Amino acid sequence: MARKLIKYSLMIPGPTPIPTRVLSAMNHDMIGHRGPLFSAVMKEVMEGLRWAYETKNDIFIYPSSGTGGMEVAVVNMFSPQDKVIVLNIGNFGARFVKICKAYGVEVNDVKFERGKPADPKVLEAELKKGPVKAVLMQQNETSTGVLNDVEALAKTVRANQPEALIIVDAVSGMMAAPLKTDEWDLDVVVSGSQKAFMVPPGVSAVSISKRAWKAYENSKCSKHYWDLGLMKEEAPKGHTYTTPPESLIFGMREGLAMLKEEGKENVYARHQHNRDLVRAACRALGLNLLADDSHASPAVTAIFAPDGLDGEKIRAMMRDEFNVEVAPGQSELKGKIFRIGHLGYIDSLDIIGAFAALEVLLKRMGAKTNFGAGVKAAMELL
Amino acid sequence: MARKLIKYSLMIPGPTPIPTRVLSAMNHDMIGHRGPLFSAVMKEVMEGLRWAYETKNDIFIYPSSGTGGMEVAVVNMFSPQDKVIVLNIGNFGARFVKICKAYGVEVNDVKFERGKPADPKVLEAELKKGPVKAVLMQQNETSTGVLNDVEALAKTVRANQPEALIIVDAVSGMMAAPLKTDEWDLDVVVSGSQKAFMVPPGVSAVSISKRAWKAYENSKCSKHYWDLGLMKEEAPKGHTYTTPPESLIFGMREGLAMLKEEGKENVYARHQHNRDLVRAACRALGLNLLADDSHASPAVTAIFAPDGLDGEKIRAMMRDEFNVEVAPGQSELKGKIFRIGHLGYIDSLDIIGAFAALEVLLKRMGAKTNFGAGVKAAMELL
Repeated sequence: MARKLIKYSLMIPGPTPIPTRVLSAMNHDMIGHRGPLFSAVMKEVMEGLRWAYETKNDIFIYPSSGTGGMEVAVVNMFSPQDKVIVLNIGNFGARFVKICKAYGVEVNDVKFERGKPADPKVLEAELKKGPVKAVLMQQNETSTGVLNDVEALAKTVRANQPEALIIVDAVSGMMAAPLKTDEWDLDVVVSGSQKAFMVPPGVSAVSISKRAWKAYENSKCSKHYWDLGLMKEEAPKGHTYTTPPESLIFGMREGLAMLKEEGKENVYARHQHNRDLVRAACRALGLNLLADDSHASPAVTAIFAPDGLDGEKIRAMMRDEFNVEVAPGQSELKGKIFRIGHLGYIDSLDIIGAFAALEVLLKRMGAKTNFGAGVKAAMELL
Repeated sequence: MARKLIKYSLMIPGPTPIPTRVLSAMNHDMIGHRGPLFSAVMKEVMEGLRWAYETKNDIFIYPSSGTGGMEVAVVNMFSPQDKVIVLNIGNFGARFVKICKAYGVEVNDVKFERGKPADPKVLEAELKKGPVKAVLMQQNETSTGVLNDVEALAKTVRANQPEALIIVDAVSGMMAAPLKTDEWDLDVVVSGSQKAFMVPPGVSAVSISKRAWKAYENSKCSKHYWDLGLMKEEAPKGHTYTTPPESLIFGMREGLAMLKEEGKENVYARHQHNRDLVRAACRALGLNLLADDSHASPAVTAIFAPDGLDGEKIRAMMRDEFNVEVAPGQSELKGKIFRIGHLGYIDSLDIIGAFAALEVLLKRMGAKTNFGAGVKAAMELL
């Protein structure tokens, strides 16, 4: 008789597993969203977000997925025919291109090879070609597992076009890797609840600098739901323009409290350690990694399927045989890679477990891997 | 020593109290949102929504508040300079006007006196003035507690301009009052999780008729997050374009299951009964009601503050003294009225309790009301 596991392991780059403390915090009665009780909750969440973002800027919370936050940045900063540079290192860079084009913004789509970060020298050359309204980038590209050097890219923008807006999609990177909104002079930074905050999907947060507020005043893109001006009117009262997703905001309060208790440096170190374990295990098994060590994401790792094997088949077997859910390759990488998410509520022993499953399956599939070597390599780093 | 209540009573027109069953259902681990487990959940929710909507049309779920669903209707159906009629009977009618204008749509803003429903004869006269792309209306206007006769208004549209789109904001009306999407030939119907579905805010659902799909093909309003085409590509797999708010969708599945168990006619009857209790109690107390009986909402009742008293003061005392949260008047009605929500997870005994509190406070404030008469009148209907 086949032995079936009873536990499910979610190892995709968001949503991540949710701590019981966060689930319990969300198990909360609804309260009046325009009353003082809820305002106090919102105030705590705002303080927590400013701590995470390292900013004194305004932050607004939208009931939306992370993509909604990306759209907030575009429709509030730009007008049709504005020229912008998108540093496109993967699917979410491509999404920024898509959103800009949907609103008539002229995009210089600066593509980098999948698995590589954006190169500041290439950005510099593009900036020298003429003025742009903004440079848009991912902090962490979820589709390839690549961490951009946001600090270096931001410095390159400031050195060449001091007043260009710097817009960062930090949805999968926020709290997995350092991001210093004020020190790096980032104008708009977008995050999402379902990543390192360890909260279910449905909340997006967006920070807005003084420079960004000036751009907002001149922006002519059509908007209503995403309109920052409507949010700004309500913010002093601790309200949002539309009805806030209360249960998720109770969750954000708890997730942020847990991250504060763990300590920011420990949170970053945990994510780096998770990344290092995954990479060591892969190397010991002879599995190729899409990203180099120098820019490998602490949130998610993209792994090539061994020669002759389909990444989608590996993924299906991980789920069917061991209840371990890993993520697929996207677009041109579909089937060639699979991705292990290690951000949010994930610990090193979760990674050991996932590799135990992966090694057993690769052996069954006839892959030439040194059985046990992956788990052992990861164990040596514990 | 002052006696303090320990229970909080939420009696606003959404979010409504959440049943423990729904809270428990939301207390659920995250699962892969592109995998078969979550697809099965989405399929159940879609079936439940089609039952609630009485439709065979496509339905899509967005991570957003109800206002987001209203914006879905506007940006997917229209192009700038399109002419539409908005039947504006309150704040949410005004919101449709605002959204349309934000996207360059030309609005014939047909305003009705606050507290009155939209008059089909007035609509007919407007339709005879020339072709329009659509007529937009609320099923239930939350700000005034007025239920529109959607069936009569829809018939008026079809009789005069058979191909005009009929767009209904049913956010606060859905499942509180009958709405027959297919029988009444409604093209776009918007609902929200936090009303009669008894789920926290953060999910909006939108149904799309064949006529609406044709309009979508010609729509030139800028869009991305709300783009129905992007959602349609993912729908056959049980997916959404962006990451779905999983916990709320688990909640929707349970809320819909509870409504099915109660039975649609019982759900409607419960809401009507709640309304009748509130109105009987108000009349016995000599409190004036904003809406006439003929079009009084089964979801929320707007009550004038007695002469010389401020509605906001009554509201603050209800909260401070008895932990009963009722809603304020909006815009020009602020301070003049207060609103008692009686939709969603609210029963007749909740209403008795709220009136006990209200009567005590009105007596303390020196209002000339017949102490005890309100509760007694409501009891006579139990």
